[in-house]
Amino acid sequence: MRTVNAYAAPSATGPIAKTTIERRDVGPKDVMIEIAYSGICHTDIHLLRGDWGPIPYPMVAGHEIVGTVSEVGSEVTKYQVGDRVGVGCMIDSCGECEYCQRGDEQYCAKGATMTYNGTDPVDGSVTQGGYSQAIVVTEDFVVRVPENLPFDQAAPLLCAGVSLYSPLRHWQAGPGKKVAIVGMGGLGHIGVKIAAALGAEVTVLSQTTSKKDDSLRFGAKAHYATSDPETFTQLANTFDLIINTVSAKIDMAAFLSLLKVDGTLVNVGAPAEPLEVPAFALIPSRRSWAGTSIGSIRETQEMLDFCAEHGIASEIEVISADDINDAYERVLKSDVRYRFVIDAATFA
Amino acid sequence: MRTVNAYAAPSATGPIAKTTIERRDVGPKDVMIEIAYSGICHTDIHLLRGDWGPIPYPMVAGHEIVGTVSEVGSEVTKYQVGDRVGVGCMIDSCGECEYCQRGDEQYCAKGATMTYNGTDPVDGSVTQGGYSQAIVVTEDFVVRVPENLPFDQAAPLLCAGVSLYSPLRHWQAGPGKKVAIVGMGGLGHIGVKIAAALGAEVTVLSQTTSKKDDSLRFGAKAHYATSDPETFTQLANTFDLIINTVSAKIDMAAFLSLLKVDGTLVNVGAPAEPLEVPAFALIPSRRSWAGTSIGSIRETQEMLDFCAEHGIASEIEVISADDINDAYERVLKSDVRYRFVIDAATFA
Repeated sequence: MRTVNAYAAPSATGPIAKTTIERRDVGPKDVMIEIAYSGICHTDIHLLRGDWGPIPYPMVAGHEIVGTVSEVGSEVTKYQVGDRVGVGCMIDSCGECEYCQRGDEQYCAKGATMTYNGTDPVDGSVTQGGYSQAIVVTEDFVVRVPENLPFDQAAPLLCAGVSLYSPLRHWQAGPGKKVAIVGMGGLGHIGVKIAAALGAEVTVLSQTTSKKDDSLRFGAKAHYATSDPETFTQLANTFDLIINTVSAKIDMAAFLSLLKVDGTLVNVGAPAEPLEVPAFALIPSRRSWAGTSIGSIRETQEMLDFCAEHGIASEIEVISADDINDAYERVLKSDVRYRFVIDAATFA
Repeated sequence: MRTVNAYAAPSATGPIAKTTIERRDVGPKDVMIEIAYSGICHTDIHLLRGDWGPIPYPMVAGHEIVGTVSEVGSEVTKYQVGDRVGVGCMIDSCGECEYCQRGDEQYCAKGATMTYNGTDPVDGSVTQGGYSQAIVVTEDFVVRVPENLPFDQAAPLLCAGVSLYSPLRHWQAGPGKKVAIVGMGGLGHIGVKIAAALGAEVTVLSQTTSKKDDSLRFGAKAHYATSDPETFTQLANTFDLIINTVSAKIDMAAFLSLLKVDGTLVNVGAPAEPLEVPAFALIPSRRSWAGTSIGSIRETQEMLDFCAEHGIASEIEVISADDINDAYERVLKSDVRYRFVIDAATFA
């Protein structure tokens, strides 16, 4: 066991504060990672505040983790001490169900073990996340961060990056495809970069035009304000694929009307309330509405390699541990371009 | 011009009654069809009663038409006098848009011309359907009815048959796939037969178990009552594909929970009200909810040939023209096993 510093929420309402947690001894297949940076995901806020149900406290959030391997178990074959690595939303899964067997661990029939607020299959403890100095993870759930990806800008790729890369690849974004990204936040801005690098023609659908310059700089061909009803007239029946990163309730019929025949709108964002969708928005053009959750370990590695190859990373604002509570408030106000990343040196 | 007997709705509320309508002269690419049988589709009732918006009256419904070619235009190459043919929901489309070009006329960018309540592109008249003695249709929207398919049992295949065949093929129902059909009515019962003949393992999800014997006789492996909450526990995460033929509001979250990872629920039924769907019913298992509308002319022919090959046809109750109003009431009470077909000899 190793005691490390961490920043934990003491309750659903109390501010996140410094504490210590225990990391298990490195088992035969484990690696220990000295965390360098940890991204702040909107999910951290939802979960810590109990928006999606009660959780056990104290809880250390963080599932956008990058760092350096400091110790490896006796049977580890993929990593060595000193390797630059990352950990995303999952740290384990059953490995035996049809989904794990085919490499879709995120859809594990028994439920993948989440990086925090999960139950560690090794010792039964509640898993604690990346707002901490170090973490121990089985090597199969660790990915390699290519040399030319700066650690701080790479951190958000571990959740936000793969959450967009996975559906973009699954629904075949690429040359000849028109793709819209709804919402230009932490998820959306990486989606724009990845979709453009995949060769798709990318349009950003954002509430206003305030981020238009950024959209074009990230590779979008166009940026429309969804607050303008004209947008929906102009873009009717246009897109092969729409990725919706917005967690709020949106007018689904209006957004679905932007899809071509056989087009798909994919929700990455997860609004708490049900959405109202008329079947008539789907039927006359054989449209689909789908949902997707993060991505597999294979996809996460593929995405990191792809980002390294195409010079893609997250736009970030680096903060120190003491700024986490303020950063949360700013995330809730969408006041960040585009992702907060905590410098783990400040956990010391 | 030829005057033929027909049965028309005089208004949204008046009973359907005998009248006469004009059929245009047979143009170079047209065929005239002496109608033998005409099926009654739930859509006829919705449209004639103005449920989906106002329509012009008098209106002759009917888009499940079979009969014999009695005259062909000078440039017709596909059909000869005496051929057994059918006409479904469409009688024309633009022929030039990307969807027509790729053989998806039902999704024509300009809107396919519906068999009734459409605007005839030849003479600008309001199209009138199959509750009539004869119809004139361009040969490209006529399909051949194989010799071994009895006319009366074949009629419902022209709408109900292809409306199920198209999504079953599009979403690849076949060996190794678990398919559920929601609703055992005019659409559903043909869906069960076709899905089973395609080699899929078919389950019927019906409100009660009253039609269980029929389900098994039509090729289903199982039949569950959706009025029993236990059904949803037992069948959670089971199906690759669910075809929903029900036009009423159903508990979408419950039905979506029956899909496996990457499974799709397809609405053929079109409830007038929006459905409430939580994104969380889709996201954790990358599920999709889609809609589909009838099928292409190519698919309609393929479906008729498939049904002939597999000895599949609709279960029907043949009625005379004077029974149409009663039949409508019985359709609304789901009191038909499984489709009414009007004997066109009684239009005389």
